[in-house]
Parts: sequence; C-alpha cells; structure tokens
Amino acid sequence: MKIGKQSWRFENKVYIQETATSVGPLEAKGPLGKFFDVRYDEPYMGQKTWEQAEIQLIRGTLQTLFNKSGLHEKDICLALCGDLVNQLVPSHYAFREFNLPFLGMYGACATGIQSLLLSAVLVDSFQANHVIAGASSHTMTVERQFRNPVEYGGPKPETAQNTIMGAGLALVSRKPSPVRIESATAGIIVDAGQKNPNDMGSAMAPAAAQSLMQHLDDLGLNEDYYDMIVTGDLAKCGTPVFINILKQKGIEVEDIHSDCGNLIYSDKQKVFSGGSGAGCCPVVTFGYLCDLLKHQKVKRVLVLATGALLNPLIMQQKESIPCIAHAVALVSEAE
Amino acid sequence: MKIGKQSWRFENKVYIQETATSVGPLEAKGPLGKFFDVRYDEPYMGQKTWEQAEIQLIRGTLQTLFNKSGLHEKDICLALCGDLVNQLVPSHYAFREFNLPFLGMYGACATGIQSLLLSAVLVDSFQANHVIAGASSHTMTVERQFRNPVEYGGPKPETAQNTIMGAGLALVSRKPSPVRIESATAGIIVDAGQKNPNDMGSAMAPAAAQSLMQHLDDLGLNEDYYDMIVTGDLAKCGTPVFINILKQKGIEVEDIHSDCGNLIYSDKQKVFSGGSGAGCCPVVTFGYLCDLLKHQKVKRVLVLATGALLNPLIMQQKESIPCIAHAVALVSEAE
Repeated sequence: MKIGKQSWRFENKVYIQETATSVGPLEAKGPLGKFFDVRYDEPYMGQKTWEQAEIQLIRGTLQTLFNKSGLHEKDICLALCGDLVNQLVPSHYAFREFNLPFLGMYGACATGIQSLLLSAVLVDSFQANHVIAGASSHTMTVERQFRNPVEYGGPKPETAQNTIMGAGLALVSRKPSPVRIESATAGIIVDAGQKNPNDMGSAMAPAAAQSLMQHLDDLGLNEDYYDMIVTGDLAKCGTPVFINILKQKGIEVEDIHSDCGNLIYSDKQKVFSGGSGAGCCPVVTFGYLCDLLKHQKVKRVLVLATGALLNPLIMQQKESIPCIAHAVALVSEAE
Repeated sequence: MKIGKQSWRFENKVYIQETATSVGPLEAKGPLGKFFDVRYDEPYMGQKTWEQAEIQLIRGTLQTLFNKSGLHEKDICLALCGDLVNQLVPSHYAFREFNLPFLGMYGACATGIQSLLLSAVLVDSFQANHVIAGASSHTMTVERQFRNPVEYGGPKPETAQNTIMGAGLALVSRKPSPVRIESATAGIIVDAGQKNPNDMGSAMAPAAAQSLMQHLDDLGLNEDYYDMIVTGDLAKCGTPVFINILKQKGIEVEDIHSDCGNLIYSDKQKVFSGGSGAGCCPVVTFGYLCDLLKHQKVKRVLVLATGALLNPLIMQQKESIPCIAHAVALVSEAE
C-alpha cells in the first residue's frame, strides 16, 4: 500500500525467500567473506575479458539462487536487475541465457535496492510472485569505463571508493521466510552541487538523509524503530556528512548506523575511503544482513542504498552530481 | 492481474490520462509532425552541448505534461524513465529539477514501453496513481556515444537506422480518458546470433515475434483482435524479418502491421532504413497512436517496442546482440 509521499507499506507479507551472492578475491578476504555463497579467487573468474567476468559473476549467482531455492526458470515471474556498465551489458548478457521476463533497472549503486523495492511492490499487490531482484559490479569493468584502466596504474585520492566485485540477487515472494520486507521508500533526485567524482560518498550523503527523513515521516516512525540503519555506499568520507545532516535535523543515528562500503572491507585492506559499486549493497544486504535477521541478531534493519547518477562525459562538461537513495526495511520473522 | 507466462491484464481500468511529446527538426518535418506538442527547429534546443539538448528535450516534455494535465509535482506518485545515454544521464539531470520519486529504466529502444508496462501494473494494483512513464533519445548524443560524432561525416550503411530526436511521456492513472491500457507483456531476452550493429532491425525482429506470440498465447487472443500491431523500431530492414517469422508460425500480421521507425519519417527523408531510438516508440505512441484512439480511427492497438541490448565495447569483443521486446495493448474508450 502506498503511504505518504514516497513510501509503501507491504500489508500482504512479502518475504526474501532466498538469496545468492558472489564476490571477488578482495571481498572474499574481507570481514564478511564467510557470508557469501560463491568466492572467486581470481578477478577474471575464468573468462577472457573483464566484461565476460562480470557476466559470469551474475550468471553464477543466478544459478546459485536456483540451486538454493530449488526453483526453476519457469517458476519466476520477472527479473529486475542492473549494473554500472554502459547499457547494462553484463546483466543483459547473463540473463539472455535464461528464459525469464526481464526489465532493466538503473540507479547507479542503488540499483539493487531499487529492484528490491519494485519487486516487493509487485509481490505485495499480487501482480507477481517469485521476482528476482539484484545488481552487480566488477572493479575492472567500472574502472576502465568511468576512470582509467587499472593497468595504467593511475593514482586515486583517498576520498575515492573501491568498486567491489560482486553480484547479489534475492528471490522475493509470499512464501514465509525469516526475512520479511516491511516497507520501502523511493528516492527523489538530490543534487547538493558537489562536482568531485572522486568523492561520491559526500555527494550522496544528502540524498541518503532526505530519503531517511521522508521514510520516517511517511511511515510515522522514529529512527530508533530500527536496530540498524545501513547506508550503501557512503564509505568513510560520506558517513560523517550523512550523520551531521541528520544531527542538524535532530535525528541521531550514529549508534545504529553502518555502511556497506565500510562493512565489506577491513581497515587493513587498501580500498581508499571504502567499498562501493552496484554489487556492494546487494551482497552485504543479501549475504550479511539477511544472515543477521535469520539468526535474530537484529530485529529490524533499514537498508538505504545510494547512487551517484553521473557519467564521465557530463563530468567533463563541469556539471555537479545528482544523487538518489532508495530505502527498504527488512524485519526478522525467525522463530 | 498476472496472466500466463509473461503478461498482465489490467482489470481495474488503467488509463493514459495525458501525454506530452517533443521532437527535433527532422521529426517535426516528417509525416507525423503535427501530432507532436513541442517541435524544436534546431538540434541544440538552445543549449550548449548535445547532452544538455537532450536534458532540455525531457525537461520541456515534462513541463508540457504538467501544463496539459493541470497536475503538479506533488500529485505524481512516481516517475519511471530512461534513455540511451550512458548511465541515463539526460533523464537523471532533467528529473533532478523536479521533486518526484524516480526509478531509472533501461531497455534500449523499448525503455519507454517498459516504463509504461510497469506504470500500468502499479496503477492497476492501486500501488500508485499518477505515474509518469516514458523515454527520450537525441541523434547527436547517441551517434557520438555508440558510433562516431556526426561531425566526422563517416558513412553509414543503408541497413542502419536514424536515432530520432524526441521525448515522449505519458501520465498513467485511473482517471477515465479515451485511451485505456488493457494488457501488457514483458519480454524475455532473445539472441538470434546477429552480430551486425548496423542492422539492429533484423537483430530485434525475433524478439518482437516472440513477445507477440507470447502475448497472444497468454491472453488467449488471435492477432486480428488488434486493428494495428505497431513495432518500434524494426524499420525497413527488420520489418520483413518480423513478418516472415510470424508467417512461418501461421500468424498473418502484414495487413495490420506498422513500425514506429517507418511511420515517423517519409520516404524522401534521408534516414537509411528508418527511425529508431528510445524516444521513437514513445513519441509515435503518445503523439500519433493515442490521437488515433482518441478519435476512434482505431479501436485496439498493440504497441510492441524492441530494444537491442548491446554497447560498443561488447561489439568489439565479437559478441552477438541480445534483444528484447515489451508489449502494451491500448484500446479506445472514446465516445
């Protein structure tokens, strides 16, 4: 049911029935490594190009989702997915091998949660059942497309983030599971005038704050309703900006806030300000946060995925960076 | 209501309440020119870069939609839009000026109809009302991104299509209007092994045929249920491929088939095989076809939008072209 200006509350019990996650070697060695289903030990994932590697990342995750859920292509109503590569080529090439209705999604690093939001809305209204939602990213496809090929060895400032190698998919349905989707909020595009594409965390923080405030307002909640509010991905530079914007509005989230870009790597890993990429929030949410909910280590989590809606050409034209944040609330129904 | 493998039938009366379309000079001079709301007489649309021109194309169309409908930002539940530029930059930069929940869509030239399909599903299930759906394309942003800048003067083969300059938006709601959305079918990704990015019409034809057959099967209809079946955009090269695939399956559509890429230009205009681009099907559908339905010149139209899901990099890697087609059925309720 639509509620307030930007939100939905799901009255008909919508669940994350199953999840599948795959990551690259750096993410596998990080503190959340054990929560991921597939861990590649080399970045080409057995393929010949970086794009084919990302296609394999998605293809393998989808096969894992089918294996774990026991479902087949014919059981799936719809797949909603995307990635950061131009024209969503990895998603399209991975999904062409499967006989599934497909709709391409794009919201930069918020793509996976945008897909999850729409899936929940469709399942809640009985317009679909068994919807696959998610997103992927691969460090190497993204570096050479948005910045420079990694092989050039160009330096990056400490405010930059490391795009993760990972794909996360969720199967959304009405079949009871320990993780229920309770509500969701679709973001508006917020441009705070930031022009530095090497500090996207700070650029995205105002959009994250806007969506959180609207979410609380639409649903009539206080921030302490949630045990965790998890942004994805503000990383080290964006996190204090987010906390401070909210503090000025009288909303204290510091004690319950985590960020996917901070969670996925340890402080010893060389990842500049932290992780990012369209795969980051999905693998952390579907791998780690769903595990916490399943084991009742937390009761209620708000995932607040952020996206920077730029491309390299528009940055060369001296534009600022519009950003967006979409929120999905997950609650534990574990017994 | 979900019906069959890939389709929905809208039981709760969903309408295209209002439409807005804008086109560039070549499209304005074409046979459908008079059906478009805004006709630019120069391709920069008063802006300094091609990307800013496409942003203006969308911004102006959105303002026209608000003016024609008498609605304001606060009345809109959600906007679902996209375009062909990397990371949907024109859509994101146009929509950042409006305070609307936004979800980015991508299905190449099927983007606008993908958005219309999702909007109808959301409105039918009372999960949203007043949803904006559509897409845009601009010849110059697309040429320099997918091929070469037009300024180079590189030759193109006659099988190529001309990406149109245009943006089309629809306002989908439950308010009765002469154009009702009756049903829709989401496509699966079909790759027939075609590798020539200069003949996308032929590459997309098998996907269009698959979605049409599935649509008829899901809804239990014969092709003669529709007065018009309008593909977008197979143009001159793809049209006979589409007709022939169907003929082999015993489905005769030649007499009722039109194509947006053929309709938008006259034979005298130099556009190779015909028009294409994410804006083409939306401007023809929302400008021309909705006008035919309003004036009862046709009773039932199936719009079958096609998309080629490639990018230049994956073509350099010698891959074939996966394609998709999404269908939306429009019926006249004019009195």
